[in-house]
Amino acid sequence: MKRESTHLKILQLLKQDFGQPISGTTLASLCGLSRTSIWKHVQNLKLLGYEITSHPKEGYRLTGLPDALIAEEIVPELHTSWAGRHLHHFAQIGSTNEVAMELALRGAPHGTVVIAEEQTQGKGRLSRSWISSPRLGIYASLVLRTPLPLMEAHHATSVAAVALSEVLITIWTLPARIKWPNDILVNGRKIAGILTELQSDQDYTRFLVIGVGINVNHQPRDLEGPFRYPATSVALECGRTTNRKDLLVQFLARFENQYDLYLQEGFSAFLPRMELLSAVLGKRIRVLVGNREIRGRAAAFSPEGGLRVWDESGNEETIWAGDITRLEGME
Amino acid sequence: MKRESTHLKILQLLKQDFGQPISGTTLASLCGLSRTSIWKHVQNLKLLGYEITSHPKEGYRLTGLPDALIAEEIVPELHTSWAGRHLHHFAQIGSTNEVAMELALRGAPHGTVVIAEEQTQGKGRLSRSWISSPRLGIYASLVLRTPLPLMEAHHATSVAAVALSEVLITIWTLPARIKWPNDILVNGRKIAGILTELQSDQDYTRFLVIGVGINVNHQPRDLEGPFRYPATSVALECGRTTNRKDLLVQFLARFENQYDLYLQEGFSAFLPRMELLSAVLGKRIRVLVGNREIRGRAAAFSPEGGLRVWDESGNEETIWAGDITRLEGME
Repeated sequence: MKRESTHLKILQLLKQDFGQPISGTTLASLCGLSRTSIWKHVQNLKLLGYEITSHPKEGYRLTGLPDALIAEEIVPELHTSWAGRHLHHFAQIGSTNEVAMELALRGAPHGTVVIAEEQTQGKGRLSRSWISSPRLGIYASLVLRTPLPLMEAHHATSVAAVALSEVLITIWTLPARIKWPNDILVNGRKIAGILTELQSDQDYTRFLVIGVGINVNHQPRDLEGPFRYPATSVALECGRTTNRKDLLVQFLARFENQYDLYLQEGFSAFLPRMELLSAVLGKRIRVLVGNREIRGRAAAFSPEGGLRVWDESGNEETIWAGDITRLEGME
Repeated sequence: MKRESTHLKILQLLKQDFGQPISGTTLASLCGLSRTSIWKHVQNLKLLGYEITSHPKEGYRLTGLPDALIAEEIVPELHTSWAGRHLHHFAQIGSTNEVAMELALRGAPHGTVVIAEEQTQGKGRLSRSWISSPRLGIYASLVLRTPLPLMEAHHATSVAAVALSEVLITIWTLPARIKWPNDILVNGRKIAGILTELQSDQDYTRFLVIGVGINVNHQPRDLEGPFRYPATSVALECGRTTNRKDLLVQFLARFENQYDLYLQEGFSAFLPRMELLSAVLGKRIRVLVGNREIRGRAAAFSPEGGLRVWDESGNEETIWAGDITRLEGME
């Protein structure tokens, strides 16, 4: 973290005069380092993707920022208490959830975030894979260490779904809706998914990992493939390229805020918004529970966040782990 | 496992003629090994606690068995398909659940069992400790890899509690009762506890670890201490020392049988027995749910195994993770 904080200091100075030169002597003096040390750090920053020119007389000039979700870019924007205060960035890993679970097992603190530019084995729900194209999406996993009653662990997924939807709605003005329990749709197409994993004893969770995959700058060609569900991206829906960093930072801030609210006020504070944001309530659905298919109407959420389905014979059933395979008349 | 299976073969031959000598040549010939190899294995068996005398002319003579829950003693008695087919025995470890969780993370197969003669950090429920005196009790953890819906993971604890109670009732003729959800009482005193831990995604468990701690040959002096609940042991209740191996083998067999039944027929097959065996149904209880105390009557189990409590104002509440702190009028 020492190198990281020096990076942050140098970048802060270079960004203040973006495109303008600052002498090595000035940087060295303001950072309390030698000119040689500044030079070495600048070389590292260039390796991270920063475009920095150097001129023997003028000094250093920042001319371009990397399109990468590295701590150097995220930390200055992040005004959270715990979400993302420990960041682990990878150019390419198997799955951010897998690494976050490992870090959690080794005691990583509450709010630790694992980010990958690319996942080679991105995981979706129910052992499905998740397409994780390099630098087009956000693939991030968050470690939560507040113990939740095991029977309420699924609330964390819902809090994340509400937080992410509300960020897409309020800041990107997209009509995001939650396909219960863990997908976010825009205009009937999947834009993001959430995958929660956890370790628990019989009463309380020891830790949870909330993984999010968000399609950000995908173009139609990036979304081709044998998907179970039509996909879209923030860029496609907004009609312009989106800064991934902004979206990640906004999500982390909103999630922290909403998760703390959940801990304080309970799940009932989320039910009205889950209803409001639901892509399934009131719709006719087919839902797969294990190997059993239920057809019926998604009638309501139970106070604990289960989905109440009225089947075609008029029986009501509350489902917790169902997979909605088809939505008729869904917007 | 090769060494273990040779041990098993040699022991089988020595046990057939317990107290009688068998020549090294005979053993070597029947095991397909050299006499030197037999000698080496016998030395290892003596290290494990087997009393084996050797005489230049007569050969080897088994005169005593170790009081240890080692594979050499358990495997010949175990007629299960999966429970305990992979055994890991430790003279002393921190906690069998901890080791079993680690083995499960590394892919240990369904039914793997971790046994310790002594735990230095035995874990009880809700982060309490569990007294694990050397060689007096059974401290064992079982890895289950059949995926269960996360919201039904607690069924595994109940299946274990029913199986263990029924073994104590049918074979040791003790009036065992379940103090919901995870303790076994005999005559109002705690004789065993179950601690379940698991890893899961938001829908299905990836694996569970069912840990059992059973007080077997404890005498009153072994059960002194600041317990939350009066304790007893199988030996105290039966009035004689009990073979720990027999109890462990019986439990593993019964658990396998009942768990397979649960997978096949569902939890409803267990509810009548949970009711029959319950130490709390119909009783006035105080139950701590988080920091909230509910006083009332334990009225029934819900179809999913939650405890329905009628509080003093006549409200019904179903609890899943409650801790029963006091039972009035409990037998």
